[in-house]
Amino acid sequence: CTSVILCKSVLVTGSSRGIGLQLVKELAERSDRPARIIATARDPDVKDAKKKKKQNKKNQNVIMVLEDVNSQESISSAVQEVQSIVGSEGLSCLINNAAINISTDLNTVTPDAMMTTFQVNSVSPLFAFLPLLQTSASQSTGMGLHRAAVINISSILGSIQANWGETAAFKAYAYRTSKAALNMLTRCLAVDLGPKGIVCMSLHPGWVKTDMGGPLAELTVEESVSGMLSVLSTLSEDDNGGFKDYRGHTLPW
Amino acid sequence: CTSVILCKSVLVTGSSRGIGLQLVKELAERSDRPARIIATARDPDVKDAKKKKKQNKKNQNVIMVLEDVNSQESISSAVQEVQSIVGSEGLSCLINNAAINISTDLNTVTPDAMMTTFQVNSVSPLFAFLPLLQTSASQSTGMGLHRAAVINISSILGSIQANWGETAAFKAYAYRTSKAALNMLTRCLAVDLGPKGIVCMSLHPGWVKTDMGGPLAELTVEESVSGMLSVLSTLSEDDNGGFKDYRGHTLPW
Ligand SMILES: NC(=O)c1ccc[n+]([C@@H]2O[C@H](COP(=O)([O-])OP(=O)(O)OC[C@H]3O[C@@H](n4cnc5c(N)ncnc54)[C@H](OP(=O)(O)O)[C@@H]3O)[C@@H](O)[C@H]2O)c1
Ligand SMILES: NC(=O)c1ccc[n+]([C@@H]2O[C@H](COP(=O)([O-])OP(=O)(O)OC[C@H]3O[C@@H](n4cnc5c(N)ncnc54)[C@H](OP(=O)(O)O)[C@@H]3O)[C@@H](O)[C@H]2O)c1
Repeated sequence: CTSVILCKSVLVTGSSRGIGLQLVKELAERSDRPARIIATARDPDVKDAKKKKKQNKKNQNVIMVLEDVNSQESISSAVQEVQSIVGSEGLSCLINNAAINISTDLNTVTPDAMMTTFQVNSVSPLFAFLPLLQTSASQSTGMGLHRAAVINISSILGSIQANWGETAAFKAYAYRTSKAALNMLTRCLAVDLGPKGIVCMSLHPGWVKTDMGGPLAELTVEESVSGMLSVLSTLSEDDNGGFKDYRGHTLPW
Repeated sequence: CTSVILCKSVLVTGSSRGIGLQLVKELAERSDRPARIIATARDPDVKDAKKKKKQNKKNQNVIMVLEDVNSQESISSAVQEVQSIVGSEGLSCLINNAAINISTDLNTVTPDAMMTTFQVNSVSPLFAFLPLLQTSASQSTGMGLHRAAVINISSILGSIQANWGETAAFKAYAYRTSKAALNMLTRCLAVDLGPKGIVCMSLHPGWVKTDMGGPLAELTVEESVSGMLSVLSTLSEDDNGGFKDYRGHTLPW
């Protein structure tokens, strides 16, 4: 990957495993790595100790912060901790990656599954770290990663238009509605924050072999993440309010 | 209005005032009125006694049912009551109209506002009355109001694509995300229920002079509702999974 990541600080939510963990790893290994990489997770004593060890070895200077995105209290205390880490520089790039996908088809979906999924996948990204991004944005000009960006990890399953025909075969009432809501949030934030120098976009990682994506998925986490980092490296005003996949292709709402 | 409504039974949620009340009124006044018109509201002793009186006078044979769409318990007991009303015929047309719009811009939005709005506007339509629609659908063929339909009253403010430029001036984080989520729900239901003979669509009433729309809105409730009933009168397979406004124009997701 020859693209360059020009970015002072990145925060990735849900970085205990899967795409979040790989994002943190690849960012930390780059020669152009952001000075501060902040990895949040709801359980920093990650269950999978082996993974954790590997992660620690490679990711020197990755700062772990406790954050359960299902708890406003936990989000608030994470914001305070990150504030004290980034100081007056603020935060350049927030990657809202943490998410759940409770299996829900028409027969199994429950009000609780709808509400919890919405809280974790759609509401939490709205209340995390925006002031810190504004601090960073106020210190540069232009639009892009060097200044400030909110990357909402969405999904093609959140595309209302694409939920038809063959691609509708995957049933996921709670997950699909939460990601469509997240896409609207991206757009609301883009309208409000774009003029303040913060690019906001939705990014679909592709179908990826993780606990969520399953073993039959098309991409390895490495393929997905290197694609997403390429997209991020060319982030510009044109991406504000957009919905792209890991190859940089625009997706329909 | 010369269109014909061929429909055994219609249920309208949130029918105490505004668009819901007008839908019930106009349906009840038609010569081709559905045999059963069921109006649900969370407070059947409607505050506005005058309106209520007028409604009762004109709407003979409108059946009022108690339903607070913010409570699963209340929804469940409404379903039972409606079940006993429609009996083995089932319900032909469900109009999910009840909704709230808590004022929320970037500075005033709260997690609570997001969650409550999502529950009322997006989750409740999923758990109301689907079995009764399936009963109706199992008794006819074709696709349309005569058989079974779910009409989710959505909004152009729920269009992710339209939330840009001038039309993005109206800030409403909680409401916009809830209606985008509702649109995804429409689409999920259309995929699952269309093959069973139930048409599912999102319908935008236009900008209407109600408590929610405010006095500066473009349309009277009469204009909006007569337009929507025209759209419903021509409901067909082509509308399944669609998003239209009161004039029948297709809207972008
Ligand atoms: N995999 C795919 O094919 C695919 C496709 C499209 C989009 N996506 C999106 O990509 C993102 C990452 O997915 P993934 O495949 O890496 O999923 P994953 O393997 O299931 O990992 C999910 C991550 O989110 C974290 N998380 C869940 N709930 C949390 C909470 N309440 N607080 C903090 N962290 C929480 C998990 O932490 P714990 O370890 O503590 O549970 C874990 O780190 C998600 O937004 C997902 O929707 C994935
Ligand atoms: N007006 C517009 O310009 C406009 C534009 C686009 C879309 N819409 C949509 O059109 C529909 C009707 O809107 P409107 O303008 O008629 O709004 P409205 O005048 O504010 O009326 C809202 C209705 O929903 C009911 N409702 C709210 N929460 C409820 C709950 N928990 N349980 C049961 N009923 C509840 C209200 O009942 P109470 O009397 O008990 O409060 C009332 O009957 C909504 O879906 C709205 O989003 C309206």
